[in-house]
Amino acid sequence: MIKYVYDFKEGTKEMKNLLGGKGANLAEMTKIGLPVPMGFTVTTAACNQYYEKGTVLWEELKAEIFQHLSSLEETTGKKFGDAENPLLVSVRSGSVFSMPGMMDTILNLGLNDDSVIGMAKATNNERFAYDSYRRFIQMFGDVVLEVKKYKFDTLLEKRKHEKNVEQDIELTAEDLKLLVDDYKRVIEREAGIKFPQETRQQLLMAVEAVFKSWNNPRAKVYRKIHDIPEHLGTAVNIQSMVFGNMGETSGTGVAFTRNPSNGDKKLFGEFLMNAQGEDVVAGIRTPRPIDELNEKLPKAYSDFVKVAELLENHYRDMQDIEFTIERGELFILQTRNGKRNTLAAINIAVDMVDEGLINEEEAIMRIDPMQLDHLLHPTFDAAELKQAEVLTKGLPASSGAASGKIYFSTEDVVRAKASGEAAILVRLETSPEDIEGMVASEGILTARGGMTSHAAVVARGMGKCCVAGAGEMRIDEAAKCFRIGTQIVKEGDYISINGNTGDVYLGKIKTTTPQLTGKFERYMSWADKFRTLKIRTNADTPRDTKQALEFGAEGIGLCRTEHMFFEDTRIPVVRQMILARSLEQRKQALELLLPMQRQDFVEIFEVLQHLPATIRLLDPPLHEFLPHEEADIREIAKAMDITYHQLKDVVDELKEFNPMLGHRGCRLAITYPEIYRMQVQAIIEAAVIVKKEKQIAVKPEIMVPLVGDVKELKYVKELIIETVEDILKEEDVKIDYTIGTMIEVPRAAVTADEIAAEAEFFSFGTNDLTQMTYGFSRDDAGRFIREYIDKQLLEKDPFTRIDRNGVGKLMELAAKLGRGVRPDIKLGICGEHGGEPNSIEFCQMLNLDYVSCSPFRVPIARLAAAQAAINSKGQSK
Amino acid sequence: MIKYVYDFKEGTKEMKNLLGGKGANLAEMTKIGLPVPMGFTVTTAACNQYYEKGTVLWEELKAEIFQHLSSLEETTGKKFGDAENPLLVSVRSGSVFSMPGMMDTILNLGLNDDSVIGMAKATNNERFAYDSYRRFIQMFGDVVLEVKKYKFDTLLEKRKHEKNVEQDIELTAEDLKLLVDDYKRVIEREAGIKFPQETRQQLLMAVEAVFKSWNNPRAKVYRKIHDIPEHLGTAVNIQSMVFGNMGETSGTGVAFTRNPSNGDKKLFGEFLMNAQGEDVVAGIRTPRPIDELNEKLPKAYSDFVKVAELLENHYRDMQDIEFTIERGELFILQTRNGKRNTLAAINIAVDMVDEGLINEEEAIMRIDPMQLDHLLHPTFDAAELKQAEVLTKGLPASSGAASGKIYFSTEDVVRAKASGEAAILVRLETSPEDIEGMVASEGILTARGGMTSHAAVVARGMGKCCVAGAGEMRIDEAAKCFRIGTQIVKEGDYISINGNTGDVYLGKIKTTTPQLTGKFERYMSWADKFRTLKIRTNADTPRDTKQALEFGAEGIGLCRTEHMFFEDTRIPVVRQMILARSLEQRKQALELLLPMQRQDFVEIFEVLQHLPATIRLLDPPLHEFLPHEEADIREIAKAMDITYHQLKDVVDELKEFNPMLGHRGCRLAITYPEIYRMQVQAIIEAAVIVKKEKQIAVKPEIMVPLVGDVKELKYVKELIIETVEDILKEEDVKIDYTIGTMIEVPRAAVTADEIAAEAEFFSFGTNDLTQMTYGFSRDDAGRFIREYIDKQLLEKDPFTRIDRNGVGKLMELAAKLGRGVRPDIKLGICGEHGGEPNSIEFCQMLNLDYVSCSPFRVPIARLAAAQAAINSKGQSK
Repeated sequence: MIKYVYDFKEGTKEMKNLLGGKGANLAEMTKIGLPVPMGFTVTTAACNQYYEKGTVLWEELKAEIFQHLSSLEETTGKKFGDAENPLLVSVRSGSVFSMPGMMDTILNLGLNDDSVIGMAKATNNERFAYDSYRRFIQMFGDVVLEVKKYKFDTLLEKRKHEKNVEQDIELTAEDLKLLVDDYKRVIEREAGIKFPQETRQQLLMAVEAVFKSWNNPRAKVYRKIHDIPEHLGTAVNIQSMVFGNMGETSGTGVAFTRNPSNGDKKLFGEFLMNAQGEDVVAGIRTPRPIDELNEKLPKAYSDFVKVAELLENHYRDMQDIEFTIERGELFILQTRNGKRNTLAAINIAVDMVDEGLINEEEAIMRIDPMQLDHLLHPTFDAAELKQAEVLTKGLPASSGAASGKIYFSTEDVVRAKASGEAAILVRLETSPEDIEGMVASEGILTARGGMTSHAAVVARGMGKCCVAGAGEMRIDEAAKCFRIGTQIVKEGDYISINGNTGDVYLGKIKTTTPQLTGKFERYMSWADKFRTLKIRTNADTPRDTKQALEFGAEGIGLCRTEHMFFEDTRIPVVRQMILARSLEQRKQALELLLPMQRQDFVEIFEVLQHLPATIRLLDPPLHEFLPHEEADIREIAKAMDITYHQLKDVVDELKEFNPMLGHRGCRLAITYPEIYRMQVQAIIEAAVIVKKEKQIAVKPEIMVPLVGDVKELKYVKELIIETVEDILKEEDVKIDYTIGTMIEVPRAAVTADEIAAEAEFFSFGTNDLTQMTYGFSRDDAGRFIREYIDKQLLEKDPFTRIDRNGVGKLMELAAKLGRGVRPDIKLGICGEHGGEPNSIEFCQMLNLDYVSCSPFRVPIARLAAAQAAINSKGQSK
Repeated sequence: MIKYVYDFKEGTKEMKNLLGGKGANLAEMTKIGLPVPMGFTVTTAACNQYYEKGTVLWEELKAEIFQHLSSLEETTGKKFGDAENPLLVSVRSGSVFSMPGMMDTILNLGLNDDSVIGMAKATNNERFAYDSYRRFIQMFGDVVLEVKKYKFDTLLEKRKHEKNVEQDIELTAEDLKLLVDDYKRVIEREAGIKFPQETRQQLLMAVEAVFKSWNNPRAKVYRKIHDIPEHLGTAVNIQSMVFGNMGETSGTGVAFTRNPSNGDKKLFGEFLMNAQGEDVVAGIRTPRPIDELNEKLPKAYSDFVKVAELLENHYRDMQDIEFTIERGELFILQTRNGKRNTLAAINIAVDMVDEGLINEEEAIMRIDPMQLDHLLHPTFDAAELKQAEVLTKGLPASSGAASGKIYFSTEDVVRAKASGEAAILVRLETSPEDIEGMVASEGILTARGGMTSHAAVVARGMGKCCVAGAGEMRIDEAAKCFRIGTQIVKEGDYISINGNTGDVYLGKIKTTTPQLTGKFERYMSWADKFRTLKIRTNADTPRDTKQALEFGAEGIGLCRTEHMFFEDTRIPVVRQMILARSLEQRKQALELLLPMQRQDFVEIFEVLQHLPATIRLLDPPLHEFLPHEEADIREIAKAMDITYHQLKDVVDELKEFNPMLGHRGCRLAITYPEIYRMQVQAIIEAAVIVKKEKQIAVKPEIMVPLVGDVKELKYVKELIIETVEDILKEEDVKIDYTIGTMIEVPRAAVTADEIAAEAEFFSFGTNDLTQMTYGFSRDDAGRFIREYIDKQLLEKDPFTRIDRNGVGKLMELAAKLGRGVRPDIKLGICGEHGGEPNSIEFCQMLNLDYVSCSPFRVPIARLAAAQAAINSKGQSK
């Protein structure tokens, strides 16, 4: 005869298919010696059998259940339905995979008009007993008898109204007794049967309800969507209830095996004597620190200490344990890996390695790389945050938390900063002209733009908090205020923004900045040991470069030369260059830019020392350097000593419908080769200077952006080589340099074999590649991408995580084609994805040489790369 | 001994490697019995030998050349260097492939101080003889002795100045004699040798110069670029000169074997007695019609008639023949396939099939499909065109020619048209709001936008002439004028635009509209016989559809439903829909649009009868339907009875940085499913109506635009099916319909296998696919694409011709992936490329089911498809 019911102590965790996930887990806990409340599991096979028999519980099954029930009564010393010391049980569904729509937990099954008296006696709390009874009837009615919940709620409300009280807790035992009668009448009226007083009948009905819930519509749809086979069935777990409110030798509590705030190896938690879990939550009595349990119940405490150790050794991780003590006896209700902050996570991982509990590889796999973000950026004070009023929500564009007075222009932010104020820069969207304001601000808030908008990218580069695309916000720059619905926030008002969630709060919230400890360094050094991907950084200034190197970057993967053009002293010259009406004039302006750009590179090279730098030549369309608002045009024309119309003409001429797909990248060099010539000259002359003056051997990797056809690269490459060789000949010095290209245009990916013939390296520009492969403008897509995610048309914003299926396929193709022609081609990624763990894993799969990300993402990338390497090792085994 | 010199009569056309292209051709003409002036060829092998021997002419070669020279003297009865009847020759290079940089022709070699006297005698024209001598010295000096040309020109100018004359022709024989002396002195001074009087030395020096020119830098670069092997070498052709100015039995002329204007089978050409070709060109004497030659020189005429027939039979095409008669003897100087206009081309092809000269397949291959354009659109009167002043140049965006007064707004054009004027609409760029003005105009001229800009696409659809992206033009709408440099053209001024060349002329030029003849129909019926691709049309109105069917379209491949939204009566409702602040309001507006859109489809279906129609659901971003200029916003807000700010707010909210990559296509349906629901309802209800009322069984193919992920298609497909099935159930009728998608986003191409699981057809939207694959905005790329073509970075505008290497690869991939999942998937193309012959050939290679193009491109597509089918048959053999 097939065995359909297993005692917890009969099973193991390997029997998941038969016992369901929950049942197998309870069996395992029992097996390793944990004091879990006793119980048994009706198997998934029984569920299938139930359906095969036409949805009836057959006699043999009932007998087997009752047999286990009897042995449970024996073990616990309690009796089902007893008016003195009643056995109560919980009934839970438990399939192999957890699944929404399955039956909810029923607690306190076994209560009836008799046993409720027993419970009242045992707990010495009549009110508690009748409240439990009332709840049990409601839940049983709801999930087993399908009586609508609100029918009960109405009665509860009516009773409170009659008694003129607000809270459930204000109802007395007598009130609850009456309510129990009310509830029983509802059952009779709605379900057509009396509420079953026979406890065994209660149990069988509950078991059947669990079986039936396997086939409810929601569960069926879920299985269909997730390809979960129909024949798996669900198990039913029946477990004895324990009570912490059975007098002064009983109690309940929660504890972590280590400190979840700093990782200290010491029990951390609290408990309440003579109480149930609800009492802790209700917050009427103040729980005591877990240490004090030792004074109250030394045996239970020492048992708990042993259990904690047992659990840590078993699960090899810090545990978060719920326990109840019933008349001096410890029961473990639940244990799970404890949540902890990042600092604690790192300290615990390092300690556990030192304790020999886990090895370095496991330690590396323990921490979600994104969590490191919290170590690198300020966070809000948790208490103050709770009080704060959410004003609106945007995209979490750059990590951190910031509080300050709002200002709507770079000038105002800079002025505020100078006078010692903390300022938040609020803009419709930022443009390169706002850089100075972004630097001076505590954080940036924009109404437009997505995860890779200008504000987002630059803020991440700076490690500065940014919330982008807060679409509800209506900015009125003239009036210096913004509007959310009818609420108006004015210049100088305080707001706080959370770059990790996108939340925007009205008012000031305290922030704290964490410190990096020695354990962090050790932990990261293990990551470096495992990873095979190099980690570079996207940095355009010596300051950013220095920051990135401190975080462990191994070179620059993307230096955007245009960012150097936006400085106050330079942009007028850049504009002169753009407005030049002849090659001669343009060359004159470029002559002025040359020493500035050269000096930038000298400083960056000095910071980098021997580390490599990939330098991208000018990429954005020229109109990005020009003003667009009427007032700005007037002002700048005046400053440049030309007429409004002269400037306006050029602005109009350069205007583009789709600048993203316009006259930019290497296309500029086809039209104005002299611009790239100047930039290359600056790079190489800088390399010569640091070589001659500081004996630093720089290896510039000159990168041509937006190549779509090998002919473009050929054209630009020729002018680069010409320029470089002229300088090196004249200076009589050797500089190692390479020339490569971005792969960011789909056509480049498709024709990567042709391009690789000319390119010594590829750097995947996954921002643009994603834009063009999806046809999503990163500046505009914010508004519908959120809708896509809501409607499950997108799992993740593809600007955040590489779309492996589409963009990834093009990357794979490009890598294959490129390596086919040039086996030693260096491959990297410099899009925003270079700092995102899932994308880094994909880069590992493509076997790239390096990923490059903004300085504050470097530690994340190091850890993610280590995990990816470990995972790939696992897969290749 | 190797033979290094071949008489023309010794060679054949198969000996191209040895004799070069020109030599083989001369041999072939001689062989078929044409009276070409006699001569011989020094082989390419001799050239190679020359280099192997260290660039010297060896004795055996010289002897062989002189031997052939002697026999030439014998045949012609003339003697080299003779003072009575001198033999003169031309010397020409002739490699296997023609190549720039190779030596120019030297004419009249053999002239010296003696033979010039002989020439004067023979032609009875001393001035002609000395002018020929002077020219010969200059050319010999230039190409053989490397004396700079200007040194001679200076002397000529000096001489004219002294004589106080303007034209060369005013110099007398005596002047020219003195000039000959001057020239000889220049040679001596500059080249350090006397001008060789020894004619055999002249010949050897010329042969050596030809050999040397094989290795001049320009030719070497050209060979490198075009992969022409170095070892091919060049041959040298030495041919006797004949003279048409040797008295009244001599003459010269040019004739076509058939009429190049209408194809009539009758010699068509002209001649001049006692004249050289130069005299015809100089235009001093008026040539006579070729018929009259029969009266003057009946023998020569009848010889020419025979030669004409011979040549047509040999080349199996109409010939354009240059001839000279020397003392009654006919010589053919050159023959080539004659240029003809399209009407003639068709008539000749059809006639030649009837004559049995060529077969239908050959007839089909004879005509460049693009030529048909001339039959379908007006053209400028050739004579008036010659006089016209080119004002500026834009892109030839839509074929035809148009003349009219310029107006800068739709209203003004419509008003002008109403008062009987021919108007040209001039705009910075057009938008859908200009449609009415475009219809009313004779042609459209824009300052911005490329080959697939709005103006270009819509104009082509209408078959209306359009020049787009005339970048020099500065439009001042307020002042109603435009400026080109300093020239100002005002409203009401006449201009003329050529949509085939992009030229814009000041003033009025007469246009003529050709008629389609019966031969055209016959010719096209052959095309239909050969082609395997179906030809559909892009049409949005019953009128366009009708036009396309008349041109032979077999259904609609792209009906853009949004074009129906732009009509005067509809756009206010569309705007209401966009401004709706609730689903309810939006549905109300859609309710109003439904009957209009339904009626459109009813009418289109009635025109189509049983032919299929692919209908694309709404594609453009909603802001395209809203005004953008301040004044327009004010006006429309007023008309809509809302405040300026209400409208302005929505306009701002919908504004996008890169609309091409923005909230459009199926993305709209994700946000506003009700819009697509209304459109689908209109389509299906219309199908029901024509089925019930007219018994027309329509097969709507509902097409979802801008799909990048199968999930989008799934989402939209579900709502389509739901809507359709509801109607069909209610109406109790069966309509065959299919649901498919555009492949226009690179991601769709890459994931076409997933998409094919849901799509019954793919239509390649190559406009957008090209934009996104290249990252070229079609509206902005105009300005740099031309530069790319100039710098040979692009062979062709990829918006005109499919980029096989990049975009084509994605198409190939998509076709392969799609067919892998759904072998019977219907594949078509509806981008602008669908009407371009080279792209159609590519579609044939991909084995698509159909191409779809604008109505006026349908005949072109039919012919191109036929040629592609014939070519592919050839290749698969």
